[in-house]
Amino acid sequence: MAKKKLNVALIGYKFMGKAHSNAFRQAPAFFDLDAEPVMKVLVGRDAAGVKAAAEKMGWEGYATDYREVVSRPDIDLVDITTGNTSHAEIAIAAAKAGKHVFCEKPLAMSVAEASEMLRAVEEAGVKHCVNFNYRKLPAIQLAKRLIDEGAIGRVFHWRSVYLQDWIIDPEFPLVWRLQKEEAGSGALGDLAAHSIDLAHFLLGKIATVSGLLETFIKERPLATAMGGLQATASAQRGPVTVDDGALFLARFESGVIGTFEATRFAAGHRNGNILEINGSEGSLRFNLERMNELEFYSRRDPGHIQGFRDILVTEGGEHRWMGAWWPPGHIIGWEHTFTHQVADLVEAITRDKPATPDFRDGLQAQLVLDAVERSAQSGQWVAIE
Amino acid sequence: MAKKKLNVALIGYKFMGKAHSNAFRQAPAFFDLDAEPVMKVLVGRDAAGVKAAAEKMGWEGYATDYREVVSRPDIDLVDITTGNTSHAEIAIAAAKAGKHVFCEKPLAMSVAEASEMLRAVEEAGVKHCVNFNYRKLPAIQLAKRLIDEGAIGRVFHWRSVYLQDWIIDPEFPLVWRLQKEEAGSGALGDLAAHSIDLAHFLLGKIATVSGLLETFIKERPLATAMGGLQATASAQRGPVTVDDGALFLARFESGVIGTFEATRFAAGHRNGNILEINGSEGSLRFNLERMNELEFYSRRDPGHIQGFRDILVTEGGEHRWMGAWWPPGHIIGWEHTFTHQVADLVEAITRDKPATPDFRDGLQAQLVLDAVERSAQSGQWVAIE
Amino acid sequence: MAKKKLNVALIGYKFMGKAHSNAFRQAPAFFDLDAEPVMKVLVGRDAAGVKAAAEKMGWEGYATDYREVVSRPDIDLVDITTGNTSHAEIAIAAAKAGKHVFCEKPLAMSVAEASEMLRAVEEAGVKHCVNFNYRKLPAIQLAKRLIDEGAIGRVFHWRSVYLQDWIIDPEFPLVWRLQKEEAGSGALGDLAAHSIDLAHFLLGKIATVSGLLETFIKERPLATAMGGLQATASAQRGPVTVDDGALFLARFESGVIGTFEATRFAAGHRNGNILEINGSEGSLRFNLERMNELEFYSRRDPGHIQGFRDILVTEGGEHRWMGAWWPPGHIIGWEHTFTHQVADLVEAITRDKPATPDFRDGLQAQLVLDAVERSAQSGQWVAIE
Amino acid sequence: MAKKKLNVALIGYKFMGKAHSNAFRQAPAFFDLDAEPVMKVLVGRDAAGVKAAAEKMGWEGYATDYREVVSRPDIDLVDITTGNTSHAEIAIAAAKAGKHVFCEKPLAMSVAEASEMLRAVEEAGVKHCVNFNYRKLPAIQLAKRLIDEGAIGRVFHWRSVYLQDWIIDPEFPLVWRLQKEEAGSGALGDLAAHSIDLAHFLLGKIATVSGLLETFIKERPLATAMGGLQATASAQRGPVTVDDGALFLARFESGVIGTFEATRFAAGHRNGNILEINGSEGSLRFNLERMNELEFYSRRDPGHIQGFRDILVTEGGEHRWMGAWWPPGHIIGWEHTFTHQVADLVEAITRDKPATPDFRDGLQAQLVLDAVERSAQSGQWVAIE
Repeated sequence: MAKKKLNVALIGYKFMGKAHSNAFRQAPAFFDLDAEPVMKVLVGRDAAGVKAAAEKMGWEGYATDYREVVSRPDIDLVDITTGNTSHAEIAIAAAKAGKHVFCEKPLAMSVAEASEMLRAVEEAGVKHCVNFNYRKLPAIQLAKRLIDEGAIGRVFHWRSVYLQDWIIDPEFPLVWRLQKEEAGSGALGDLAAHSIDLAHFLLGKIATVSGLLETFIKERPLATAMGGLQATASAQRGPVTVDDGALFLARFESGVIGTFEATRFAAGHRNGNILEINGSEGSLRFNLERMNELEFYSRRDPGHIQGFRDILVTEGGEHRWMGAWWPPGHIIGWEHTFTHQVADLVEAITRDKPATPDFRDGLQAQLVLDAVERSAQSGQWVAIE
Repeated sequence: MAKKKLNVALIGYKFMGKAHSNAFRQAPAFFDLDAEPVMKVLVGRDAAGVKAAAEKMGWEGYATDYREVVSRPDIDLVDITTGNTSHAEIAIAAAKAGKHVFCEKPLAMSVAEASEMLRAVEEAGVKHCVNFNYRKLPAIQLAKRLIDEGAIGRVFHWRSVYLQDWIIDPEFPLVWRLQKEEAGSGALGDLAAHSIDLAHFLLGKIATVSGLLETFIKERPLATAMGGLQATASAQRGPVTVDDGALFLARFESGVIGTFEATRFAAGHRNGNILEINGSEGSLRFNLERMNELEFYSRRDPGHIQGFRDILVTEGGEHRWMGAWWPPGHIIGWEHTFTHQVADLVEAITRDKPATPDFRDGLQAQLVLDAVERSAQSGQWVAIE
Repeated sequence: MAKKKLNVALIGYKFMGKAHSNAFRQAPAFFDLDAEPVMKVLVGRDAAGVKAAAEKMGWEGYATDYREVVSRPDIDLVDITTGNTSHAEIAIAAAKAGKHVFCEKPLAMSVAEASEMLRAVEEAGVKHCVNFNYRKLPAIQLAKRLIDEGAIGRVFHWRSVYLQDWIIDPEFPLVWRLQKEEAGSGALGDLAAHSIDLAHFLLGKIATVSGLLETFIKERPLATAMGGLQATASAQRGPVTVDDGALFLARFESGVIGTFEATRFAAGHRNGNILEINGSEGSLRFNLERMNELEFYSRRDPGHIQGFRDILVTEGGEHRWMGAWWPPGHIIGWEHTFTHQVADLVEAITRDKPATPDFRDGLQAQLVLDAVERSAQSGQWVAIE
Repeated sequence: MAKKKLNVALIGYKFMGKAHSNAFRQAPAFFDLDAEPVMKVLVGRDAAGVKAAAEKMGWEGYATDYREVVSRPDIDLVDITTGNTSHAEIAIAAAKAGKHVFCEKPLAMSVAEASEMLRAVEEAGVKHCVNFNYRKLPAIQLAKRLIDEGAIGRVFHWRSVYLQDWIIDPEFPLVWRLQKEEAGSGALGDLAAHSIDLAHFLLGKIATVSGLLETFIKERPLATAMGGLQATASAQRGPVTVDDGALFLARFESGVIGTFEATRFAAGHRNGNILEINGSEGSLRFNLERMNELEFYSRRDPGHIQGFRDILVTEGGEHRWMGAWWPPGHIIGWEHTFTHQVADLVEAITRDKPATPDFRDGLQAQLVLDAVERSAQSGQWVAIE
């Protein structure tokens, strides 16, 4: 019997579009999905660019206007990987057209936008998912399992840093990610948003924050052509209007205390999404650059053999999603998190379950981002509503 | 203008078949290839199994007899991922039919077979490639570059281990990999073969060896159903006829001295293909379980800052193949080595260059495997012819 | 010609007394000192205890009243390792008696006390030294050198944690370190004080802080016998009056932004004094549990070989103090930092140079501790005076 | 009641003499010994040198002729740290004079010498100890305990390397360690001897070996002044007569198979005494440069949390000798192994127990060294008698 189809429209074809395309291509080849995602249409404003991308990445067709696409009756799922400024507009249009919506993070430019998006998808009764893809790491799933099983007991501390170094050079141009009107914020929304969502996923809600934002390089050469991470510097300069680094202290609803840091000025760290959790029975450590490993310390081990275990999370029978890939010890790469997310989302749609993480999670992260910004301005602790 | 097509037939659809399928699916989506590989036909003896696999993994069709397939005029490349015993037969048939041949390692069951295969492809004038896929790791390419540039100077030592642990349990059944008539040898041909090829690639030919082979568990339950790593034990037992562990000392033609070890009895190591090279100017270290990293020590650094550098080989502009994937710090997985190999092979075919590694390399590895076995039997050092 | 003598009185003989005794015993055996420290007298309130300790640890005599000792004409240097509450009293008495003063950290119970101590030693014109012993790590000296040489350029980030786990068990008794009137503060003064001093040493003054203090376990069994880390729990309980964990954000005078954390609730960390510094040209990392190593990343390395170097700081010719110990690769232990401090202090006294770190440094750390406490109470950022 | 005294004469005052002196100075200050070692006399041929060393390192007196010293009635223990050529002569003289004998490794220049030494001490009925100091590492003691408890089950593999890099420079002069008549052998006797003893201690006797010795740099400048590691090169050159690197395969009596490597040509390794043991239930790993850690993998852990644990062996209650030093997490240094050895030796003497390791262990190591040399010459496997 032929498998049900799930027709997908992807809006955006740059870095994130490439990662999402890969996920739709790979998910059915590795996972037993209830429906087959069909890569129907890729959408971008530049006709030549989107056409070439569609061919290379395996889309059946392409389009230049998302409005026409979201109303096409043959589309089931709209996936949004455009710049942050258009998330709300597209997601709301898709929801109103009755499409399921999958959206890149951060969900929105503001709490207000995120709230509106959530209302739209809930009113439409469609599935909604925000791509905090790091929940879909086998190591993070193991961390969640260990916390839920009580393996680290009562949690005392959260400690996360998200370290990158791609704009240390003061001559690196003023790309869209460094402009508030395009990006919303800097390291905070781009990087700390991931840490915040992981904290929510693993330890529950953050209650109050005290934050600090800093822009180390105040002016940069204008970029001659906007685009992903690649851009060329021009002779003119303009102001950097987002944070280069963001720090905050937090108290969680559960009583956990935590530190968060996100920066693009940590030389030597390309994508260092690093976290540690300490509890009464043990600790957990994770680093995205070694994403196939989770470190776990257990105070329940006999005293003479207590130590951080370095667990290679590649056992099919033990570690989520790994049975679909390769034998133990054969590591997976970064983009596999997107494939896991797509497999989960297809399951949510076909089995009518909530997708995870959803727009509620996206809004919750947005509330924290907003609180950090307000705290950094006021010098006060700010409570999350 | 439409891109040239390269029609592929893949023989075998289990573990290696899945990895090769993935490579043909992914290569054109990430690399700019001169020809587009077309996944024409998947071949396996079990019609139902191969049909399902072909659908899931994206092949246009399937077949149950490789003989018909290798003579099909629309096939350009025959890719062999069957058991070791059939490599020679299929490769020779494909070569005689004028097809390019891509073959899993170890190339053959014996030096004689490997020689015959090499003769066949050379006489046919087709491209030939053996899948020592670890040459296609960005970290290994960087190691090669550093050695060739003289960054570690005159090399003194090679030190490699390939450690796995999947058959430690004495009740693990007698799968085909533990039977000489199916597998040829045990850890030696399965694992040390990779180390030998990397040694050849990085340091040139091995000249003489002194080896030791050991089978720790002499008898095991028969497997009720043969298959990849999964199998069920039956009540009957049979003899293990291959080595569980293989050790050898080596002298290279260049004067380097080295140690090699391969075992399936190293608890805690799932796929520990680990090597270190020491030279007059520096050292290199690599571990497949952290395949996105290469460690490099340079005696040319000022004395107060000498130390092993841990290089994350994910910079598009610096590390081979990485420009095709993701931004720096976004790691790739094990199967990407196959994708790189396919991209290289397509280039060899379209630009009429030798593929690497080719059957000559496969034969060279076979000569060393053979010498190690003879040395282990005789207790003497054995020279590679 | 006989070497000049430097007669030492040590007040306190528990954990720190043992470490200081070791330093006076070892310094002359490994370093070429201008004067020979003579272990004259060990002082403690319990006659039997101090007598036994003096014999075992190599002191010529013992005494039970520090007042008599500080006025002895044959004493040149008074070393204070008693509880924090008596530092000021003893140090001021010693200074008034014209003795050089060496004092354990934290210098005092309050800013006021520390100021008074500083005034006393300055008025007396004696040498004064506070034992922030981690400045005397070869790895920290190398970090300082690299920063001063500009090897990491303009510094953006400081990130330190000091993690221990010895009081996680809620039944661990209420030892003096958990009582405000004895200890002054908890993890803050005991652990963060070290991080603060290292930050001052490496990056200059901290300007403003936003802090958070937490006591996870509010009540504990009373300790039947007070003493170092060993104590027995009684049936009665009392309130914990110091912080279990302390977090703060900081801005340095130089513009650096930083995070500090100190806790005794980080399972798996026995003495994890860990820090990282990121600058425009590179980064540095250090962990006290691997105190013979410093990690250094340089953006000045060619792109293909950039990575964190793990420098083993054991080269006599390259790394401070190491020439006095063993050949390269033969690591030193924790207590060697005290020996280095003693060697430095003897040199300061014999050559009439300022000791480092001195009471000014002790006061500066105290100012930050005080500001963190006030910030934690008020929920406001607090500037260091 | 005054403690019994144990009067010590130490022969030799260079690198090893310094380490032994330290051990005798430190042992009574940290351990509760039944007798107090008294540092009576230091012996060396150069009167001025030995006098200065005695004063600095804390010896009561000095002498220039060991013969007079070994016959002094007030000496209880003779400790030999001279060049390898004089071990036998001094040890036999000391034994004949009824003194206990402590001797540096390798015990002797040959099996014959070692046998004669063993006979002499046994006939004299004195305690005898060879300083394979790495047995006295807390981490190695933990490894022994885990093996003895069955925590790693039936052992399959031993894998050790001892890597140094101090003579890579071809202009490094021809010091005594590079001359067969002074040193006996090169990396083999200096470094592999340690690995062999650890293998014997942990896994029992080595039965047969196949070895390879190599001298990479055949000639070097003569050293103008002989001495420890420091020496100056002269214009004249002479032949290197020992091995630069030594490799061997081994079969143990127990059925374990192993690889051994020792070299002074491994750039980046200053003192890399590294080993790994794999058994049916788990594995152990150790590296001397991180000597306060032992890694342990247990197959008995639940599947989802199996991983190498990094155990910091600094818990007083758990890890041998550590209770005498500092609180957990405060690491010890290389020379502490000597202090532990002295504490053990004093106990053996005062309680009339065999010292460990003793001359029998020294001889056993010598038998393996000898077998490796013969195997390297003959190209055959050689059995240990």
